[in-house]
Amino acid sequence: MAKLRKRKRERPRRASAKAGLPPGTMVFIGEQEMNAARIDLIEYSESRMKERHDVSVAQAVESATGPGVSWINVNGIHDVGLIGSLGNRLGLHPLTLEDIVNTTHRPKSEEFPEYIYVVLKMISYDEAASQTEIEHVSLILGENYVVSFQEKDGDVFNTVRERIRATKGRIRSMKADYLAYALMDAVVDNYFLAVERIGDRIEDFDDQILADPKPDAMLEVHRLKRDILSQRKAVWPLREEIGALDRSESALIRPETKVFLRDLYDHTIQVIDMVETFRDVLGSMHDTYLSGISNHMNEIMKVLTIIATIFIPLTFVAGVYGMNFEYMPELKWPWGYFLVLGFMLAVAIGMVGFFRRKKWL
Amino acid sequence: MAKLRKRKRERPRRASAKAGLPPGTMVFIGEQEMNAARIDLIEYSESRMKERHDVSVAQAVESATGPGVSWINVNGIHDVGLIGSLGNRLGLHPLTLEDIVNTTHRPKSEEFPEYIYVVLKMISYDEAASQTEIEHVSLILGENYVVSFQEKDGDVFNTVRERIRATKGRIRSMKADYLAYALMDAVVDNYFLAVERIGDRIEDFDDQILADPKPDAMLEVHRLKRDILSQRKAVWPLREEIGALDRSESALIRPETKVFLRDLYDHTIQVIDMVETFRDVLGSMHDTYLSGISNHMNEIMKVLTIIATIFIPLTFVAGVYGMNFEYMPELKWPWGYFLVLGFMLAVAIGMVGFFRRKKWL
Amino acid sequence: MAKLRKRKRERPRRASAKAGLPPGTMVFIGEQEMNAARIDLIEYSESRMKERHDVSVAQAVESATGPGVSWINVNGIHDVGLIGSLGNRLGLHPLTLEDIVNTTHRPKSEEFPEYIYVVLKMISYDEAASQTEIEHVSLILGENYVVSFQEKDGDVFNTVRERIRATKGRIRSMKADYLAYALMDAVVDNYFLAVERIGDRIEDFDDQILADPKPDAMLEVHRLKRDILSQRKAVWPLREEIGALDRSESALIRPETKVFLRDLYDHTIQVIDMVETFRDVLGSMHDTYLSGISNHMNEIMKVLTIIATIFIPLTFVAGVYGMNFEYMPELKWPWGYFLVLGFMLAVAIGMVGFFRRKKWL
Amino acid sequence: MAKLRKRKRERPRRASAKAGLPPGTMVFIGEQEMNAARIDLIEYSESRMKERHDVSVAQAVESATGPGVSWINVNGIHDVGLIGSLGNRLGLHPLTLEDIVNTTHRPKSEEFPEYIYVVLKMISYDEAASQTEIEHVSLILGENYVVSFQEKDGDVFNTVRERIRATKGRIRSMKADYLAYALMDAVVDNYFLAVERIGDRIEDFDDQILADPKPDAMLEVHRLKRDILSQRKAVWPLREEIGALDRSESALIRPETKVFLRDLYDHTIQVIDMVETFRDVLGSMHDTYLSGISNHMNEIMKVLTIIATIFIPLTFVAGVYGMNFEYMPELKWPWGYFLVLGFMLAVAIGMVGFFRRKKWL
Amino acid sequence: MAKLRKRKRERPRRASAKAGLPPGTMVFIGEQEMNAARIDLIEYSESRMKERHDVSVAQAVESATGPGVSWINVNGIHDVGLIGSLGNRLGLHPLTLEDIVNTTHRPKSEEFPEYIYVVLKMISYDEAASQTEIEHVSLILGENYVVSFQEKDGDVFNTVRERIRATKGRIRSMKADYLAYALMDAVVDNYFLAVERIGDRIEDFDDQILADPKPDAMLEVHRLKRDILSQRKAVWPLREEIGALDRSESALIRPETKVFLRDLYDHTIQVIDMVETFRDVLGSMHDTYLSGISNHMNEIMKVLTIIATIFIPLTFVAGVYGMNFEYMPELKWPWGYFLVLGFMLAVAIGMVGFFRRKKWL
Repeated sequence: MAKLRKRKRERPRRASAKAGLPPGTMVFIGEQEMNAARIDLIEYSESRMKERHDVSVAQAVESATGPGVSWINVNGIHDVGLIGSLGNRLGLHPLTLEDIVNTTHRPKSEEFPEYIYVVLKMISYDEAASQTEIEHVSLILGENYVVSFQEKDGDVFNTVRERIRATKGRIRSMKADYLAYALMDAVVDNYFLAVERIGDRIEDFDDQILADPKPDAMLEVHRLKRDILSQRKAVWPLREEIGALDRSESALIRPETKVFLRDLYDHTIQVIDMVETFRDVLGSMHDTYLSGISNHMNEIMKVLTIIATIFIPLTFVAGVYGMNFEYMPELKWPWGYFLVLGFMLAVAIGMVGFFRRKKWL
Repeated sequence: MAKLRKRKRERPRRASAKAGLPPGTMVFIGEQEMNAARIDLIEYSESRMKERHDVSVAQAVESATGPGVSWINVNGIHDVGLIGSLGNRLGLHPLTLEDIVNTTHRPKSEEFPEYIYVVLKMISYDEAASQTEIEHVSLILGENYVVSFQEKDGDVFNTVRERIRATKGRIRSMKADYLAYALMDAVVDNYFLAVERIGDRIEDFDDQILADPKPDAMLEVHRLKRDILSQRKAVWPLREEIGALDRSESALIRPETKVFLRDLYDHTIQVIDMVETFRDVLGSMHDTYLSGISNHMNEIMKVLTIIATIFIPLTFVAGVYGMNFEYMPELKWPWGYFLVLGFMLAVAIGMVGFFRRKKWL
Repeated sequence: MAKLRKRKRERPRRASAKAGLPPGTMVFIGEQEMNAARIDLIEYSESRMKERHDVSVAQAVESATGPGVSWINVNGIHDVGLIGSLGNRLGLHPLTLEDIVNTTHRPKSEEFPEYIYVVLKMISYDEAASQTEIEHVSLILGENYVVSFQEKDGDVFNTVRERIRATKGRIRSMKADYLAYALMDAVVDNYFLAVERIGDRIEDFDDQILADPKPDAMLEVHRLKRDILSQRKAVWPLREEIGALDRSESALIRPETKVFLRDLYDHTIQVIDMVETFRDVLGSMHDTYLSGISNHMNEIMKVLTIIATIFIPLTFVAGVYGMNFEYMPELKWPWGYFLVLGFMLAVAIGMVGFFRRKKWL
Repeated sequence: MAKLRKRKRERPRRASAKAGLPPGTMVFIGEQEMNAARIDLIEYSESRMKERHDVSVAQAVESATGPGVSWINVNGIHDVGLIGSLGNRLGLHPLTLEDIVNTTHRPKSEEFPEYIYVVLKMISYDEAASQTEIEHVSLILGENYVVSFQEKDGDVFNTVRERIRATKGRIRSMKADYLAYALMDAVVDNYFLAVERIGDRIEDFDDQILADPKPDAMLEVHRLKRDILSQRKAVWPLREEIGALDRSESALIRPETKVFLRDLYDHTIQVIDMVETFRDVLGSMHDTYLSGISNHMNEIMKVLTIIATIFIPLTFVAGVYGMNFEYMPELKWPWGYFLVLGFMLAVAIGMVGFFRRKKWL
Repeated sequence: MAKLRKRKRERPRRASAKAGLPPGTMVFIGEQEMNAARIDLIEYSESRMKERHDVSVAQAVESATGPGVSWINVNGIHDVGLIGSLGNRLGLHPLTLEDIVNTTHRPKSEEFPEYIYVVLKMISYDEAASQTEIEHVSLILGENYVVSFQEKDGDVFNTVRERIRATKGRIRSMKADYLAYALMDAVVDNYFLAVERIGDRIEDFDDQILADPKPDAMLEVHRLKRDILSQRKAVWPLREEIGALDRSESALIRPETKVFLRDLYDHTIQVIDMVETFRDVLGSMHDTYLSGISNHMNEIMKVLTIIATIFIPLTFVAGVYGMNFEYMPELKWPWGYFLVLGFMLAVAIGMVGFFRRKKWL
């Protein structure tokens, strides 16, 4: 039960916290996942690369407007002041800022004249707690910079960082749009891990549920259903979102990046396929559970009823010879008792044989 | 039962009241929610703001045609005369007037050369009566004015009023189209509250239904299903409606307002997502209920059948030694009685053990 | 059973009657609902109005080609000769004539150079016989005339007639296209009545079915499902049909009539919404029925099993003291009998208590 | 079982027979339904008509290229040589020839520069064997000729033949495209017969299944489901097919024929509606069956359990007075036996009364 | 269980293996099916044909750029080095190379300026192991060459090879695009075999499951469902893929090849139809199984309950005459015992008759 309570908090619960506030008001909606927000900065071009940690807003903005590609990574979106100040200096629309700090916002991409705003969900499946965690990620793609906003420190973007650090590799020779793509690709690649993990759990479960159906299993199926549902809600909008970026006529996305976006689109479709498959499997698991319950219960009832049925005729026979009639010739027979016992045994054996032949036993 | 009766009245029941009347005939369809209709007026521009209550139709119309933005709020749409007179003076089409007073009309937006007509539903979930209340709201967006029609006094628009009263803030510097957007946004923000509340109720219920499935629970699930269904009917058409306003080429909606409409569109999608999720959860709740019932019943039957099954063979043994054969050697044995009692005990213990091992007990 | 037979005849049964006949062959498909077909005629313009009954085909055609708006109403479409002669003189296509007399034809609108052909279904729900009746209605909209074809006399169009008779009112100042719209509007308005009536029946039924589920109820649910299904088939195509008229570029539909067509379109959507809602409710009613049956049956089985289970151990005890062992010390005790009776009572009370505590009783 | 085997052969089984052969290879896929293939020829214009049977390929081709309209009807598509030779001389594409002799091919229409190729399925429902038979029909519409290919002799096209033979009638004054339409119309008209027949069977069955649910009924429902499924697969593609012909810009289809194609389109929609309705009815029949089974079984269990429950307490009472206690005062009463019998009767009557009052009996 | 474990490995499991790697990184995802990768080469034009085995990458590339049509067939896609080197020399995009060696990639077609990339799945159903095997096949269509990539040696393309070897035949006179079509056609033709085989299995199963429903059958239905699901995922995307090739404006696909692509499209639709039909049948098989279980169980319970019910009243009668009342007149009757036995027989016969008449026996 404690577990159930804990899960409840994950529901998109406080979206209503903003009801009544003017649009564009930045209100952090979510759970604070880390202490202080932090800005990390990577500047690179084909020939050079500079990495700085814990920079100030002013430094970040200066870098964004300078030459080369700047990747400004903000960890901790609960710091509304920091994000507001960064956003205003970069010329972000108030509605964009509002969505960056609203962790209940669904994935989308939106084009503004000066930048493209992309919302993603990072999914991870915590096997120990057997629960899906969803992190809200925003990307701002400007002329020469990308700003990424994460709820907390995470290692999903590390692979991109490594690739930038390596002097060779395509990423160093490409522009900011390729960096944005690389970050989105890192998020989507990570989906495979999360979906496969929950898929393994479902598979293990499927074997178990038929063998030993318990009410708990039913609850677990419910839980997995909700996990798949929340993964689904994170993944489905991506299809439209990435398709929109591919079709976009904005100058911020260069033609040579589009082939990569199409590849990303294919990956998204593949994740969606996997999620839908697991959803189908879970859907039919309820049937399996009911069949299991029914098989189990029927087996009990069958054996018990058969036992009862064998003894009822025997008890009747015993009852007959327990009658007190004065003239009951069998009672006088010296072997009467043993004959009756033998008859009872024969009846019992006969019935067991009958049940066997009918395949009921 | 009384509750059920009461709920019935909420169904879109009297849409047929107008059958046979010429189109454009204003007939109030709904329940009168307040005594006298009332017109409130707020006039504002960037520099000044004037608020008047209980104004006459003439005053309202005069303000609408004057400079600055006028927000005419009409509470009480049952007053067909008042609304007709206001509508005629503002040049509203008879069909628009007909729809304003028809509380069964579904959400839509319709463009006329002189104004845009928007129908919305305000949803609130009354937790005490555990029932969803739906209020019919109409907006008329003209060149310099917005008229809002509500069934009764309500506090949903108060947040907008507060924002106008505050001298700073975006709303004072924008035109009537932004005011209309702000009112729609207030209505949609309010959906989050209503949907979250019913969501909490569903969640609480889900825990309870598996633990203790009762026929009443079934009825409650039915009721929640209808609540979700009526919320769904209020929310789904919004998607198309706001999308149409965003794509509209009418000069009444300025380009700078469109980005806000797109934001509103995103919120609508999010509400729809929530409603659909709760609908899915409710759908599977019926399965949970049946599983609960079945588990409960099976447990009873199992224990009872086991008790019966243990005693049936024992009764047979007692029956055997109740037979009246003259020659039954065991009857003469001094310890026969106790041996038989011991044998019975052994059989009983053996069967209990067998059931235990089979995990039936 | 008799009722079921009767209902059968309503199915679109004899659509095959025309198999093998050349296209454009007029064959009346349906049940003859009245004796002789009759043509009524109303001619009107803004200033004058003339009403004539039982006119000849020649008179009708003459009026149609004259000035002012002519409404030719034909009651009784089984008179293939009359309709053929009227149609030929008005220049109707043979396929149009074929469809006018085919009551199984689905709603549609079709544009011809000289006229627009509209097929509608008039629905009424006969509460006494609890069955939906569907009437085939055709409209021909020409330059200055409207011809309406009905299966039998009906009062649905009376409201339109009344509005024409009244000297004031919009209808008199509008052209034939508005008359056609007014007739369609009368038909659609009437749907609200039929759908609400069947909705009331469903609602009453829903209360009853959970309290007292009987096999008859199941049959009734089936019947209501078919009624809703046939209403659905009459209503759904209207959406496309009226949408097509609204988008039509035919000169026969004037721009000022289109706003009314859009209003009619909204009404159609509302009827469809209602029908779909009732369909959902009916769909879940089968679940309710099964739950009711299951609750009812389980209650019986539970009480009966409990009675049996209480007496089985008691019977065993009685059996034990019915054994004929020579040495059974309790049998000699003076209070043995009463002690055993007391013990039995205690066991019975104990088991009832146990059942109570487990909430099984 | 024999029936089931027989039905199996109808499945689109040997579509794989062509695997590995080059495209355009003519392989007859189906069951040979007649002995020798035969070509019949009808030539007509407005003024004259000539009918010839068993003509050679050369005669058929000569007629096709001559003046007037030629209808070449080929019965027996298993004769790959004959059809190949005819097709080559008429300039048909190898892929068209391949499809003509492949009875598993789905309905479609395909335009080639010189001709239009139309695939149809002829449906008939054999009530005796209660099974749907599907025949593969191909039409080639050329400039002045129509070639129709049938699997065997059939009477569906006879109505068209009769209309050509009659000197008057529209068909004689129209071109080859109208003939093609007339043949398609004959096929679609025939669907009504087949669908209505299976519909009657479903209706009869629905009454029976609730009254007397047997496992056989379940099998029959399965069978009807497959019949409806195969009818559905024959009918659904027609919608797209005829729509494509209507929208076609090929000069082979004259504008005056298009209104007839639209009429045919309406008929197709109507057949689809009927098929979908019967499918819905069949879908809910499984529920009816389960309800019937459940009602039936519950009735048995109820009566049996009640009988058992009445006798169990009585047996207990008898057991009590069968105990061998030395001091049991009732045993000495002269009327003890009759009092006990009377008490037993009272208990039995009381329980029956209790069951009656609870409506369990 | 061992079988289940084995099946698990087939799930698209290691798609996540690439998470974190830069896009365009070639990582073989799948199971290595053969030892060493091998390149075979066929060069042909209308007049000549040359076949070479085990050629080097350099030879293959040289042939691809030479005159005539070159078919380069690569068996074994686990050899990332070989494929990378071949791809780079032919100018393939890194993303294409990545997809060629990723066996979890779904079917698609993608146009590049220099070539068209087509992904297919080859399906075979292994009846012995009763499991579907899916092989990843890629085609590259260039100006004068086709490269095909297979996971292992296979005989599906042999039919195409034979057709090329034969001097006559359409394939020798056509260009590379027809060769690509021929290979795709060979793959799709092969689907019919796989789908028909699994269809036969389903059919056999359907007969068996109603006669003898066992928990194993349920598992088998699950397994078949997954097989159909994986076939479905291989077949559905083909529809879009081939449609895209047909609509393609790339100069690489000549107009005369398009009619063949449309034919292939028809075949794809037919396979999809078959897969969907089998899926429907499997869907209703679960219902059949539950009905079978329920019938079976009910039969057992019925017979057993009837036996019990007949003996319970008899046992009661025996109990009555086992009572020890001093005054029980029947006990003294000389024929009392036999009269009671006769009465019991009569009751038993009567009850059996009653059950017979009610059709319960």
